[in-house]
Amino acid sequence: MPHANRPGEFELIRRYFAPLAAGCAGALSLTDDAAFVTQRDGQDLIITTDAVVEAVHFLAADPPDLIARKALRVNLSDLAGKGAVPFGYVMDLCLPDAIDEAWIAAFAGGLAADQAEFGVQALGGDTTRSPGPLMIAITALGNCPTGRMLLRAGARVGDDVWVSGTIGDAALGLMVQRGGLTEIDQAERAMLRRRYLCPEPRVRLGPLLINCAHGACDVSDGLAADFGHIAEASRVAIRIEAAAVPLSAAATSALANHPDLMVEIISGGDDYEVAFTAPPESRADIAQIARETETRITRIGVVAQGRGVSVLDRAGFPVTLQKSGYTHF
Amino acid sequence: MPHANRPGEFELIRRYFAPLAAGCAGALSLTDDAAFVTQRDGQDLIITTDAVVEAVHFLAADPPDLIARKALRVNLSDLAGKGAVPFGYVMDLCLPDAIDEAWIAAFAGGLAADQAEFGVQALGGDTTRSPGPLMIAITALGNCPTGRMLLRAGARVGDDVWVSGTIGDAALGLMVQRGGLTEIDQAERAMLRRRYLCPEPRVRLGPLLINCAHGACDVSDGLAADFGHIAEASRVAIRIEAAAVPLSAAATSALANHPDLMVEIISGGDDYEVAFTAPPESRADIAQIARETETRITRIGVVAQGRGVSVLDRAGFPVTLQKSGYTHF
Repeated sequence: MPHANRPGEFELIRRYFAPLAAGCAGALSLTDDAAFVTQRDGQDLIITTDAVVEAVHFLAADPPDLIARKALRVNLSDLAGKGAVPFGYVMDLCLPDAIDEAWIAAFAGGLAADQAEFGVQALGGDTTRSPGPLMIAITALGNCPTGRMLLRAGARVGDDVWVSGTIGDAALGLMVQRGGLTEIDQAERAMLRRRYLCPEPRVRLGPLLINCAHGACDVSDGLAADFGHIAEASRVAIRIEAAAVPLSAAATSALANHPDLMVEIISGGDDYEVAFTAPPESRADIAQIARETETRITRIGVVAQGRGVSVLDRAGFPVTLQKSGYTHF
Repeated sequence: MPHANRPGEFELIRRYFAPLAAGCAGALSLTDDAAFVTQRDGQDLIITTDAVVEAVHFLAADPPDLIARKALRVNLSDLAGKGAVPFGYVMDLCLPDAIDEAWIAAFAGGLAADQAEFGVQALGGDTTRSPGPLMIAITALGNCPTGRMLLRAGARVGDDVWVSGTIGDAALGLMVQRGGLTEIDQAERAMLRRRYLCPEPRVRLGPLLINCAHGACDVSDGLAADFGHIAEASRVAIRIEAAAVPLSAAATSALANHPDLMVEIISGGDDYEVAFTAPPESRADIAQIARETETRITRIGVVAQGRGVSVLDRAGFPVTLQKSGYTHF
């Protein structure tokens, strides 16, 4: 079916998506039905997939380049949390009729910028019509040394508990996006909103953790929920000190006005940091990795015998978490 | 968000999708954020992706097991057309609220049956809510000997032109599905409709063609359109004899009543057969592969100097194709 708003599928691919595959000979300029990639010996293929849907994960009015970048970055973050080095991705794009060529050009521009930033290539895709919302499904591919992918199930009793970056900015950014947190500084509000709209996957950090981390994943469901996943898979208890959770200046400002925002910060999700556990003898290595990647990495708790995750206040009492992790479902 | 109709995301995965990953240790029972697969030396990874959308590619009332099977099979067909042996897939499933647990159980049952039939495993996925149509995006993964993936660009002047199975059944099946072709036999109508609803990807055949085929792809856009893709990528002309195109008994019956259906048969698409070219010295090998796989493989034309695809009638005159290939876009 032709659309007044945009060229046909083949022409869209030629103009906007084939250039995204130019760096990979096996992607055949997206002119074939599949791509080939020669894998290096001693490497496992690591695969993850995540879809984002209009009105569920983003709004139609969001900037198209940021929609594209977030759709890609949530997948790159999954790979980072597994210690994998990403090399490419495929994308299924289901486009409502209202999407025009300018939108697609901006969307592809976002992907091009992120490909350059994170060293990945488009390997293939499918573009089809959606009679409803815009949907973007991305499958990202990476490599790890054979048998070394970081697992949720790797945490051991006695490990330190670590997290990269700062936590809660995206959850607070969503509140800003919805018109909340008006009492804090304009620049801080803009930073929080940006963290919500465009996460920074820890693509460099993740693979460096392979030799020291035991259990790991990225923080997407929320700090407490994702350490809960690690605790459950590893059959251990994880205790997090609320006061140790790393916060941005903006989150600190917000929290000063509303101490109960701590629940949002710890449960809110969309942080796309790396959560991991590691033995105490790895502290010097982790400090070195933090310097090398210029990434804040903070020790926030311990792994103990037992089950489940608990977040403790300064007095050692459990913080009540109203929700156990954000789910879009 | 909880749904009255079905359990939450984690429970759905545990009940219905984790069992689909039981055959692959690296899929970690779908309890982690990514899967790992150790690749064998000397093999390339082959990747393809296709999405299907309710009201575009299927109807909400179609049987859920067939929706699942078609979504998977169109991807397996792409791999077959590239000569790849499939090993797994990941799936993004965007579910409208109206989808209930019984639907999901039937859908997963269709996938389980096809996994057993085609030797593939679920490696991962993402389940999310759709505020609109049901959408299923599948990325399928396979292997080929390094550098040997069959390309659209491989056809050479002097090659024979071949196609597997019979052509046009799915296009006629769609007409049956829409209430047409009432004059032909009930059993034949049922066969055509089944070919439309559930294609038979040539998973065994494709990899056997690696040593004889030059240019290849599966027939999804239509026989003429897909040989057009091969001709364009290979910079050759492809001539197909309309009278040689292999037809089922049902298609022959339909054509006897309506000779103009030949255009639908050649242009209709959704055949999911393998279209390929091969040098004349491969005829004996191809006959042997046909016997071995119990697959009809028919020589329907030649590759010549020039550009484009032409379909010729018995007198050698070009058949006018009203459309150049079906597109869902």
